[in-house]
Amino acid sequence: MTNDTKSKCAIAIDAMGGDFAPHNAVVGAIEAFHEAKDFDLYLVGKTDEIKDVISKNNLNFNSDFIVHADQVIDMHDHPTDTMKKKPNSSMAVGAKLVKTGKAHAFVSAGNTGAMVVNSIFGMGRIKGVSRPTLTAPLPNSNDGFTFLADVGAFVDSKPQHIFEFALLSSILLREIYGIKNPRVGLINVGEEDSKGYKLTSDTAKLLRESDLNFIGNVEGNDIFKGTADLIVCDGFIGNILLKFAESMPSFLKAAIKNYSNKSLANKLRVSPFGFPPTKRAFKESLSKADPDNVGGLPLLGVNGISIIGHGSSSTLAIKNMVLAARKMYNKNLIIKIKEELTRYAEKK
Amino acid sequence: MTNDTKSKCAIAIDAMGGDFAPHNAVVGAIEAFHEAKDFDLYLVGKTDEIKDVISKNNLNFNSDFIVHADQVIDMHDHPTDTMKKKPNSSMAVGAKLVKTGKAHAFVSAGNTGAMVVNSIFGMGRIKGVSRPTLTAPLPNSNDGFTFLADVGAFVDSKPQHIFEFALLSSILLREIYGIKNPRVGLINVGEEDSKGYKLTSDTAKLLRESDLNFIGNVEGNDIFKGTADLIVCDGFIGNILLKFAESMPSFLKAAIKNYSNKSLANKLRVSPFGFPPTKRAFKESLSKADPDNVGGLPLLGVNGISIIGHGSSSTLAIKNMVLAARKMYNKNLIIKIKEELTRYAEKK
Repeated sequence: MTNDTKSKCAIAIDAMGGDFAPHNAVVGAIEAFHEAKDFDLYLVGKTDEIKDVISKNNLNFNSDFIVHADQVIDMHDHPTDTMKKKPNSSMAVGAKLVKTGKAHAFVSAGNTGAMVVNSIFGMGRIKGVSRPTLTAPLPNSNDGFTFLADVGAFVDSKPQHIFEFALLSSILLREIYGIKNPRVGLINVGEEDSKGYKLTSDTAKLLRESDLNFIGNVEGNDIFKGTADLIVCDGFIGNILLKFAESMPSFLKAAIKNYSNKSLANKLRVSPFGFPPTKRAFKESLSKADPDNVGGLPLLGVNGISIIGHGSSSTLAIKNMVLAARKMYNKNLIIKIKEELTRYAEKK
Repeated sequence: MTNDTKSKCAIAIDAMGGDFAPHNAVVGAIEAFHEAKDFDLYLVGKTDEIKDVISKNNLNFNSDFIVHADQVIDMHDHPTDTMKKKPNSSMAVGAKLVKTGKAHAFVSAGNTGAMVVNSIFGMGRIKGVSRPTLTAPLPNSNDGFTFLADVGAFVDSKPQHIFEFALLSSILLREIYGIKNPRVGLINVGEEDSKGYKLTSDTAKLLRESDLNFIGNVEGNDIFKGTADLIVCDGFIGNILLKFAESMPSFLKAAIKNYSNKSLANKLRVSPFGFPPTKRAFKESLSKADPDNVGGLPLLGVNGISIIGHGSSSTLAIKNMVLAARKMYNKNLIIKIKEELTRYAEKK
């Protein structure tokens, strides 16, 4: 399929997803829509609430593209329960739009676990994928990204699953981030295969036998160092590492404040002009990995584009998530994943 | 046992341990010895090399306190193999000094895994301990520490082991850091017990049933936040988290440099006087958790004080490790652990 023959991109947004829904979801998505101008946007959720945000913010949006969904999944809903208890949630309806081909992508800043479950059951998995993965970029010392997968779609993954995380994420890095032959590392407590869990050595074996660019075991200090483009692990540890990394800017802010409060000399050292000159430096240095800017986390391996954002997503974060979905469609990410998995299956 | 009746503190240092051994180990330990003046110091390793460092640095040290050990464990030795292949290593000899009561503490900046193995087999475990733990302090936003255990003594720990990590480390925090009733958190991917591994929910159950101050599951962002005084986990994830955290200062340095190199405006923002004013702020803010200052990591649960330092330990780091060992002796840490474990065994 080429860009000439493929249908116009259509993206559905979960208008009810996130701590500031429906406002941020609706406003952010419509901003992306007017900026890019080349895709259809579906707003999924409670029609009256969506219309209310549109009118209060004087937005220009054709209400034919509002898709009503009666139920709302909140942050406290147990992910798997939502399938049964809330079959008409905005997440279920949004995923169904992708399933039926009406949309190519579905984006939500709602309950992450519920979005994983609704995407998998709503869109289905791509043939050959046993477990999808959430893949996240972290900043590194080389002014680039070290990607981490899985950051929490699943815990208790088996070697085959982690191998698939590496395969799926490598395609993302190649097609979307332009990294030709992504270096894949496996997180461990030492370089030798004798270190770590049996899970780790069994996974290393699978990765070594594949034609992925596996560079071996890497350690916790390799994430920031940028030793690998992609580091794979079970979703338990990936999720903890991601949340730890995301809390770093707040910690630094507090550390500087604590230091500054200790003496006048310290205060002057930090803020010679009355404001911290490196605050901006830090903010900009870390900004590309800022949740607002990364455009959410793709759930790779489902049969369609599924992007999950932070509950606290700003309108900018939502806008960037929608634009990320658009880019994945334009770059044929799902098609590329299917081709690669077919190739793998044939080799076996 | 009170301070009046107990014998004079004696500390053994692995003179051959660390990337800069024997220099840093010998110089750092002798500095601590002359500063504190109230303990005996044994230098364990190759006598001629130790004497060489003493004479070249014009140090004042009674050579009767050099304990000769023929063999040296290096960073590439497989930990468990060292017991059989290097029975006369400085680590084995040092641990034996504690076993026989000649020393109360043994300190090394050598191969961490080998030090864990040699301490366990050389000193033995305290009755009631199935697995010792390496416990590490990380800085937090409250200008204090969040301790993490286990950071790599063992991987693949069972609920009972992780419970013991919590018990042993709580005693450390109370007796050495003056935290009266340490709040214990269990690392997980969510607050609910239904999240995470079966290992996690089984461990939560043990912690909840105990009289430890268990505050429940905590997430990756709680480490810096300081939600808990102590966070427990398997050594696999603890080790990865510790190494990730330790690599943060280098990453920040690189991030500021990358930012600064992008434009002259950026450079001036970072260094209005030609040097970065917040560099010192950061250094001091993070310094208390700096490996040089924390005094190494105690291996808790072995029958004696065992402290393990970074391979790259400076003389200052070694000095602080020796002083940390002295403090643990003076505060009766091992006696307190034995009392607490006896109390636990009786309750069962």
